[in-house]
Amino acid sequence: MKKNKAAIYPLDAWTVTEEEFTIENNYRNETTFALSNGYIGTRGTMEEAYEFDVDTGMEGNFINGFYESTDIRYGEANFGSPLKSQTLLNLPNLKETRVTVDGETFSLLKSSVRDYSRSLLMKEGLVRRSLIWTTKEGKQIQMDSLRLVSFDCKHILAQRMTLTALNFDGEARVSSRLNAKVENHTRKTNPIVDYGPFGPRLLSGLLTAEGTKLIYVGTTMGSALTMGCGSAVSSFPEEAVTEIMAETGEMTGECILSLNLKKGKPVILDKFMAYASCLDSPEGSLEEFVCKQLEAARQMGMDELISRQKNYVEDFWSRASIQIDGEDSLSLIQGLNFNLFHIFQGAGRDGRCGMPAKALTGEGYEGHYFWDTEMYMIPLFIYTQPEVAKALLSWRFNTLEQARDRARIMGHPKGALFPWRTINGEEASTYYPLGSAQYHINADISYALSLYCQVTGDEKFMIDMGAEILMETARVWADVGSFSEVKNGRYCICCVTGPDEYNVLVDNNFYTNLMARENLRDALEAVRLLREKAPWKLTELKNRLQFEEKELVLWEEIIDKMYLPYDEKRGIYPMDDGFMMRKPWDEERIPPQKRSWLYENYHPLFIMRHRMSKQADAILGFYLHNDCFSEEEIRRNYDFYQQVTLHHSSLSTCIFGIVASDIGYHEEAYRYFMDSARMDLDDYHNNFYAGIHGANMAGTWQALVNGFAGMRMHHGRLSFKPHLPEKWTRLTFRVQYRGSVIQVDMERDKVHFTLLSGSPVLLYLKRSKAGDKPLYLEKGETISEKI
Amino acid sequence: MKKNKAAIYPLDAWTVTEEEFTIENNYRNETTFALSNGYIGTRGTMEEAYEFDVDTGMEGNFINGFYESTDIRYGEANFGSPLKSQTLLNLPNLKETRVTVDGETFSLLKSSVRDYSRSLLMKEGLVRRSLIWTTKEGKQIQMDSLRLVSFDCKHILAQRMTLTALNFDGEARVSSRLNAKVENHTRKTNPIVDYGPFGPRLLSGLLTAEGTKLIYVGTTMGSALTMGCGSAVSSFPEEAVTEIMAETGEMTGECILSLNLKKGKPVILDKFMAYASCLDSPEGSLEEFVCKQLEAARQMGMDELISRQKNYVEDFWSRASIQIDGEDSLSLIQGLNFNLFHIFQGAGRDGRCGMPAKALTGEGYEGHYFWDTEMYMIPLFIYTQPEVAKALLSWRFNTLEQARDRARIMGHPKGALFPWRTINGEEASTYYPLGSAQYHINADISYALSLYCQVTGDEKFMIDMGAEILMETARVWADVGSFSEVKNGRYCICCVTGPDEYNVLVDNNFYTNLMARENLRDALEAVRLLREKAPWKLTELKNRLQFEEKELVLWEEIIDKMYLPYDEKRGIYPMDDGFMMRKPWDEERIPPQKRSWLYENYHPLFIMRHRMSKQADAILGFYLHNDCFSEEEIRRNYDFYQQVTLHHSSLSTCIFGIVASDIGYHEEAYRYFMDSARMDLDDYHNNFYAGIHGANMAGTWQALVNGFAGMRMHHGRLSFKPHLPEKWTRLTFRVQYRGSVIQVDMERDKVHFTLLSGSPVLLYLKRSKAGDKPLYLEKGETISEKI
Repeated sequence: MKKNKAAIYPLDAWTVTEEEFTIENNYRNETTFALSNGYIGTRGTMEEAYEFDVDTGMEGNFINGFYESTDIRYGEANFGSPLKSQTLLNLPNLKETRVTVDGETFSLLKSSVRDYSRSLLMKEGLVRRSLIWTTKEGKQIQMDSLRLVSFDCKHILAQRMTLTALNFDGEARVSSRLNAKVENHTRKTNPIVDYGPFGPRLLSGLLTAEGTKLIYVGTTMGSALTMGCGSAVSSFPEEAVTEIMAETGEMTGECILSLNLKKGKPVILDKFMAYASCLDSPEGSLEEFVCKQLEAARQMGMDELISRQKNYVEDFWSRASIQIDGEDSLSLIQGLNFNLFHIFQGAGRDGRCGMPAKALTGEGYEGHYFWDTEMYMIPLFIYTQPEVAKALLSWRFNTLEQARDRARIMGHPKGALFPWRTINGEEASTYYPLGSAQYHINADISYALSLYCQVTGDEKFMIDMGAEILMETARVWADVGSFSEVKNGRYCICCVTGPDEYNVLVDNNFYTNLMARENLRDALEAVRLLREKAPWKLTELKNRLQFEEKELVLWEEIIDKMYLPYDEKRGIYPMDDGFMMRKPWDEERIPPQKRSWLYENYHPLFIMRHRMSKQADAILGFYLHNDCFSEEEIRRNYDFYQQVTLHHSSLSTCIFGIVASDIGYHEEAYRYFMDSARMDLDDYHNNFYAGIHGANMAGTWQALVNGFAGMRMHHGRLSFKPHLPEKWTRLTFRVQYRGSVIQVDMERDKVHFTLLSGSPVLLYLKRSKAGDKPLYLEKGETISEKI
Repeated sequence: MKKNKAAIYPLDAWTVTEEEFTIENNYRNETTFALSNGYIGTRGTMEEAYEFDVDTGMEGNFINGFYESTDIRYGEANFGSPLKSQTLLNLPNLKETRVTVDGETFSLLKSSVRDYSRSLLMKEGLVRRSLIWTTKEGKQIQMDSLRLVSFDCKHILAQRMTLTALNFDGEARVSSRLNAKVENHTRKTNPIVDYGPFGPRLLSGLLTAEGTKLIYVGTTMGSALTMGCGSAVSSFPEEAVTEIMAETGEMTGECILSLNLKKGKPVILDKFMAYASCLDSPEGSLEEFVCKQLEAARQMGMDELISRQKNYVEDFWSRASIQIDGEDSLSLIQGLNFNLFHIFQGAGRDGRCGMPAKALTGEGYEGHYFWDTEMYMIPLFIYTQPEVAKALLSWRFNTLEQARDRARIMGHPKGALFPWRTINGEEASTYYPLGSAQYHINADISYALSLYCQVTGDEKFMIDMGAEILMETARVWADVGSFSEVKNGRYCICCVTGPDEYNVLVDNNFYTNLMARENLRDALEAVRLLREKAPWKLTELKNRLQFEEKELVLWEEIIDKMYLPYDEKRGIYPMDDGFMMRKPWDEERIPPQKRSWLYENYHPLFIMRHRMSKQADAILGFYLHNDCFSEEEIRRNYDFYQQVTLHHSSLSTCIFGIVASDIGYHEEAYRYFMDSARMDLDDYHNNFYAGIHGANMAGTWQALVNGFAGMRMHHGRLSFKPHLPEKWTRLTFRVQYRGSVIQVDMERDKVHFTLLSGSPVLLYLKRSKAGDKPLYLEKGETISEKI
């Protein structure tokens, strides 16, 4: 296992602070200080002119779901290979606000700076920066700024700049700029990928500068989508401003405010920025829409935006915050809060978009949505912000038509197959062995939505959207495999790729078959629910989908006969039919510097023919469906996979940690957790600059709640099996369950459950020998139990 | 099975004749009348100005092995994906010879033509055309032409044009042209392939026109290879020529001869053309080299070239010609001769190049060399022109270094892995599941060279080249797999693709494992031979290859423990470990118009997950190594594969036919043969325009000799097991064996073996019940046996 690195930032539970600006750390810190509301995302780039190259930084502003397309080229294309790329587009930058005194423009790289500090304020949802600039002539100006991306007004990004002349009276100029000369870095940073928009991709439809207001509307060349954005310095002390000028250049706009600074008297400038696209405001002109948003923000004012932001964020923390007492607790809490904050801010909330693997913090993975959302992020939201989970699942529902089309392309006459990676709902994977072959995406989505409905009790969602997803995904499972005579009539699924991307195009991937079976079970359950509670909906679905009752009989049979590969001698479930036969892995053959993502240095065939695993695969199945296996069985499997797994994915260790907890390998579970908790904050992989590792961030929460506290939801029963790590004296967290908020407070030998709000709930405490103990919890009540 | 189509050309054993020119058939006939000597290839395009578009024709002139490279782009590239394409380059055309009378230039499309006839003369190695042209003014000219690509002078293509004024005395102009404005059609005709040189790719280094001589030298933009070519009208009646003019244009050159025609008096013009490249004449300038070739041809003269051509071709037929008495015999003989002629003329003979899948008749498959050469063409050459087989195998030897490099890229620390498709010896496959994963190429090459050495007794070749190939390929087999505990310690090879391209990346492909085992056996045998006969060579190889004796021990163990998938219940060898588990194939789900190459209309995963086979795979193994299995066993397997094979490859039916013969399914064997014999001549697949199906052409010979006559070479014993098809009364053919020529003459109940030339030979006649009967044959002797 990897050794933890030293902390990069000062330890503080709720704040991440950069105490000194250095160009070496700039690229990474742009991710650390990235802000988002799930709709707009902006990297933590500075207010000043952007002075970085491709190795030291990347300006980035995104609208979730707003993408560009180009033709994809292949050495040899296959039928069904996507021909159009989808790339989250890097949009015009509005944040730039330059300050000039005596003709000298402030620059972090060139100016004399002291008392620099920048903080991510995780309780407020803000980034705050302050510094003192000494001009060449010796003038000192205190420059403070605040930035937020509003959760309350999804189109709004806001900045407050406060300038205080410390040792002089005199003039200054502030230039608020719009820069539409932007382009994605994709190709520059990922030479093996032959797609993505290279060069500027927005055709400017409008660019205006008037007063302090800058407006831009542009349309992408490939996807023909239109976006608009604009900014306005809407609040400033009138007495301090002597002149306002505005002008536009080629793809740029600028508003210049001439200021009269008085020594010691702060001048506060509030700048509002808005982004919108044709995807979410189809009526009227985008120009008008953006202006309206800016005007609304002006009327609301920066103070109100800050206040609402705090309320929104506090509400999240009130349901999600975690306390640890014990060794390293401050460090861990900071790491966990950082993870939760980034996940929390990065998820699409409007049902029109999902959550990219790196949220909106960078261009990595083209901004695509993967299974990460359903298996890593959504479970966290289900228990902390179920409305966000619902929005993300609704987005999947809204792409069902594309998934149906994809199923036809893949040869399935019925049902829906969700894309492995996508923005607009269509498959965007250009290498099917690691892409479309990952059929498990269907079961992952089904799992997440079933969990959502079980935990929230949201039957309406199941009736309106969930059942259709479950039925359509089930139909693909019922078509893709067959009852195989050579496997005693068991149902076999051939030629798929499981989560483990080092074992591709395999037969009977354990995880896939297991999850497919549960997908079918949940679909049957959904049909039963419709029959009982919404027969009209069932009729509608039967008609629209040409769904026949006999399909249900087939599903039952498949569930009954689903094949899971099993090795009698070892008593384990091999990852797939061929896994045990593969060549034993000899790590010694791999030079140490190549012991990471193997595809970088090895041919796929070399990788595939060895008996090793990139990441949690079967083990993920044992986590999600541990009720289907005995603890002893899971232990044997864990021992086996522990030996063969290389953890060359950030989606791996958190899952191993949870299963380690399940089977009582508490020290190992703790080590895994420690490897995950601060992975991004301390940049273990030296690639945080490219964006967050969202799945791992959310996975650390699961490691605590599903791991150490052993929380599970099976068959409508919420259960816990707590075990506090040796080095801690207490772990406290909260989960939302059927509208109620439960606090779980774990000590060495005791656990306390408190119902903080909502209706009474029934929980189960799992005890190794004595069986499950039901706990009925009323509002305000605390039940304490020995563990 | 497919129904035979009607004959396109008049039936004639040795001639294929086009009796009328129509534009609809032009593209196909360009392949029919293509000529080659294995070095130069020229399509059967007309002498006139080329007037066809991409749908009706393609001018084509090639030098075997002369290729252009461009960058290959991938949606996502893998480590080891070839980055440079290799494309057989379409070269400047020299054949064009325009005739003009009274300002009217002859055109097959526009002029008034009668008595048109064009023939491929397979006994002479010529194409002859004749017609009468009536000009708009009523003048009639008899125009005859002869064309050959010289086997004797590998750089020379020659044309004789004879013009006879039939009803007038008067002037004519003959323009001999060079057209370097050429480009490949690749991309135009194959949109799924994203490589190949688009647009003109030769940078002109020299273009001269002087007297009747045109010379061109150009260098490719990507591969930086230089080629030169030139033509000269070297022989003409001086009295008839009134003026000669020469000029060059942009990428063109032209020599114009003004002629004085006398009624009834033929004017004969002999034009010689030469092609050469830096790959085979590295010393001196190509201009000089080409001029020398032209001068040598002039001195030899057209008559001598024609005479030598005939001698060369006759020598081939003296060893390869086949006689059939019985139903359809003329039709079949024509088809067979056509097949043999195209195979015979298309093979590289200089050890510097191989034989493309479509020989030099078109741009199909980029002009790449595949396993087709070793498994389909070389066996034919071994028994008819062993010197050509040797040249082709020598070319493989000459690419061993590239194959070693490829093995390293694929993760093998020792040995050599030959490329799936290539021109320059490097892997050119851009889709590894159907490319580099076909490891069997190593065993195919080894099989062909072992067969060559066994049949010819050429120990020198084995010592000089063969042993090294066998040892290096064996080393890859010894590294790629492992002794698997879950298969009782048997040696398993995972993640390869066998010949069947509908079942890719499988574990334990029967054909691959079987052929690998035999490859290892042959390698051991080669080492034994070296130890005995050339110990100095073994020492040299051990030092140079760092070869250790313990590797031999490992090989022995692998041979002993090679795993072959076996289905106990059915008593058959499944194609691979997962084959029997796949979804049963339901042809009804496939619309009739899509029941051909499935990749055109179906995603690879749809194809891979079904239990069906594109082509002979396991069945090919049962053919090549029928000595390893009982007839009953082969019959069971044949019955099984007969059911699941779709024959979506031209490499399939000929092999099924041979195995059908082996197991006594004589009617079926005959049907398969009838499906193959005239496949190209009658253009069953409507794609002959793109070039010959070389493997099937050679396969029909194998179907006769290895099928109906049951010829095999195992363990140094040449054996026959003849059975004459019901509808025939006689089948006669010849094979060359250890320098001797044997004639085999099969009747219904008897077979006669005659040693036509060479030293005495020992043959075996296989008899179902009585065991093998040895036949010792002396020169001139005929032995007749009952069958």
